[in-house]
Amino acid sequence: MPAEPTPGPYNALIDVPGIRVGHYGRSSDGYLGGTSVVLAPAGGMTGGVDVRGGGPGTRETDLLDPIAAVESVNAFVLTGGSAYGLASAGGVADTLGRDGIGFRVGPAAHEVVPIVPAAVIFDLGRGGDFHARPDAEFGSRALAHARSEDPEAMAANGNVGVGVGALTARMRGGVGNASLVLADGTTVAALVVANATGSPFDPATGTLWGAGYLRQEDGPVPVPPSASELAALLAVTARPNPALASVSGRVDPVSPAEPAESADPPPGLVSHTTLAVIATDATLTKAQCKKLAGIVHDGMARALNPVHTMFDGDVAFAAATGARPAPDVTAFFEILTAAADVVTRAIVRAVLSAESVTTPAGTFRSYSDLAPSTRPPR
Amino acid sequence: MPAEPTPGPYNALIDVPGIRVGHYGRSSDGYLGGTSVVLAPAGGMTGGVDVRGGGPGTRETDLLDPIAAVESVNAFVLTGGSAYGLASAGGVADTLGRDGIGFRVGPAAHEVVPIVPAAVIFDLGRGGDFHARPDAEFGSRALAHARSEDPEAMAANGNVGVGVGALTARMRGGVGNASLVLADGTTVAALVVANATGSPFDPATGTLWGAGYLRQEDGPVPVPPSASELAALLAVTARPNPALASVSGRVDPVSPAEPAESADPPPGLVSHTTLAVIATDATLTKAQCKKLAGIVHDGMARALNPVHTMFDGDVAFAAATGARPAPDVTAFFEILTAAADVVTRAIVRAVLSAESVTTPAGTFRSYSDLAPSTRPPR
Repeated sequence: MPAEPTPGPYNALIDVPGIRVGHYGRSSDGYLGGTSVVLAPAGGMTGGVDVRGGGPGTRETDLLDPIAAVESVNAFVLTGGSAYGLASAGGVADTLGRDGIGFRVGPAAHEVVPIVPAAVIFDLGRGGDFHARPDAEFGSRALAHARSEDPEAMAANGNVGVGVGALTARMRGGVGNASLVLADGTTVAALVVANATGSPFDPATGTLWGAGYLRQEDGPVPVPPSASELAALLAVTARPNPALASVSGRVDPVSPAEPAESADPPPGLVSHTTLAVIATDATLTKAQCKKLAGIVHDGMARALNPVHTMFDGDVAFAAATGARPAPDVTAFFEILTAAADVVTRAIVRAVLSAESVTTPAGTFRSYSDLAPSTRPPR
Repeated sequence: MPAEPTPGPYNALIDVPGIRVGHYGRSSDGYLGGTSVVLAPAGGMTGGVDVRGGGPGTRETDLLDPIAAVESVNAFVLTGGSAYGLASAGGVADTLGRDGIGFRVGPAAHEVVPIVPAAVIFDLGRGGDFHARPDAEFGSRALAHARSEDPEAMAANGNVGVGVGALTARMRGGVGNASLVLADGTTVAALVVANATGSPFDPATGTLWGAGYLRQEDGPVPVPPSASELAALLAVTARPNPALASVSGRVDPVSPAEPAESADPPPGLVSHTTLAVIATDATLTKAQCKKLAGIVHDGMARALNPVHTMFDGDVAFAAATGARPAPDVTAFFEILTAAADVVTRAIVRAVLSAESVTTPAGTFRSYSDLAPSTRPPR
């Protein structure tokens, strides 16, 4: 019998060899948000994307289509700031370009165009200043952080980088990681930011939808909350909650399909998003990367309910570094299955790692803060 | 406070007024399979589709694209027989055309082209004869059954129509229905056929993944199986199981991307599929129907793990009859949330309604037969 699949050494995206992660965020001076960078190994990586949310904000996703020409991605950026925040990817691209990293368009070393697909979450105004949002500097700083190669920092969960401004069902959200090393040695790993419209827990019991998917290495499995804790959770997450709605804005600026005057979300519902990067060290085609990105959304569905609504901008990026061989159909099946699994676990870990915060815009409480008895002592 | 959402009178797709359902199947003479028809109200219905499986077999899905011209669907067909079974939709189209029902292409009453999108499940050989599969007659008979308008027959779950040949994780699968009437009176309902590669239960406990989504009206919630029952479930569903693999064929004929000699699925894994039709009486655009079909796959992900693999041909059709007004963004959010919910419940009901069967190809046991103690007495 082959060994059972088990999480990698960091239980994080960086368990895929060569991939680095960097975060930069601010939670003062009107800010509550940040930017995260997933940096490819030196040779780049094959990429794919699948957009399932109704209100996405993205950059450079079309070139990930299997029929588009570019074969190699240099970095992915996940950022706060809604569509404005896409500027942070420009900071990443500028730095990579200065370093001669990118798609070669001329003979000189600097004649490159870095390939930096990006996606955003809606978090405007949560720090108190609607205009305080990630810009190119955020991207550059997150990239520098990735290049520092501090494993603990690269594997961090919670309110780092794009996770600083995240909410999920109006509780504090954040960044989450998880990984799985398959029996054949292939690593499949995910980094997510949970900023969903939908709830991470069953309103009937308060139990996290994805709790049953956790592995021992993910930490203690949370137990159901007490009745008073469940009431506290529902008071924050159940609609309507106009106070928090006004904090975060009532209209999604990245979803232009509806004119602003008719696009009021339900009371207390604000535009949100779950983003994920899934990566493996297997060799995959661009088409396989697209399929891999698609499966990520199954993992989201098991951790969040609802998900992929018109108020979400859910996007999954997939990357294959190619350090290991191309999978046969059986091995690809295992990679796909693992991908959904790590995403569900990463979302649960994001929710459990989030910490309450108070800004001029209000107090955003975390699941663990609202229901402390759900965390058994370690 | 508005009334709580609750299932409709039949807890079935036909709870959407005007929609009729018909089944025809055979389980003798080498057959184990059939065809199901979802018949639109007289004026047709707006349709959408979302294909998420890696090995689909479909007909007339391209015209459901929001930029394609046809605005009205006359029927959906879900059928066994893999790609061969698409012939059954021809039987439906021929009959509808003779009756003057379809897209008008000339002045005479008979000058119509019926719009009948269809999708297939892989079930070849399960009745003992690889060549015994649904043809045009199956479609005509299923349509006649729908027109008989027997509510109990139209709302049937289990091994009817396309559900006759279905397996799920090598246990017997089948057809399942569920519905939800929202607080504003809008009905959202689903019919599925569960024929998935992935398992409907958690291998650690035997509990159905979707059990927590059941409502009181869905019947008694199954309890976890005993240890010996779990062992029996795993003996059937855990890989490898070469005996059953050889029964159902090792290569998916509807998935031509891989040459047959390299497309061996993992031992015991055979090509499967989950299909769904989701319907509502709201007025939706084609684009909204496409979004509605997309959300269906979240419901699949909560009931089946894995799902949407390269061995699945998962397809969701969506339909809006337009008897009720167009939803605002809040109401559409509720429709989408309900859609995923009814699909999860319909899949659980399909699994619980399935019955064991023996054919010349072997014995296909159901979840309830393998784990009878999971069904509390009514």
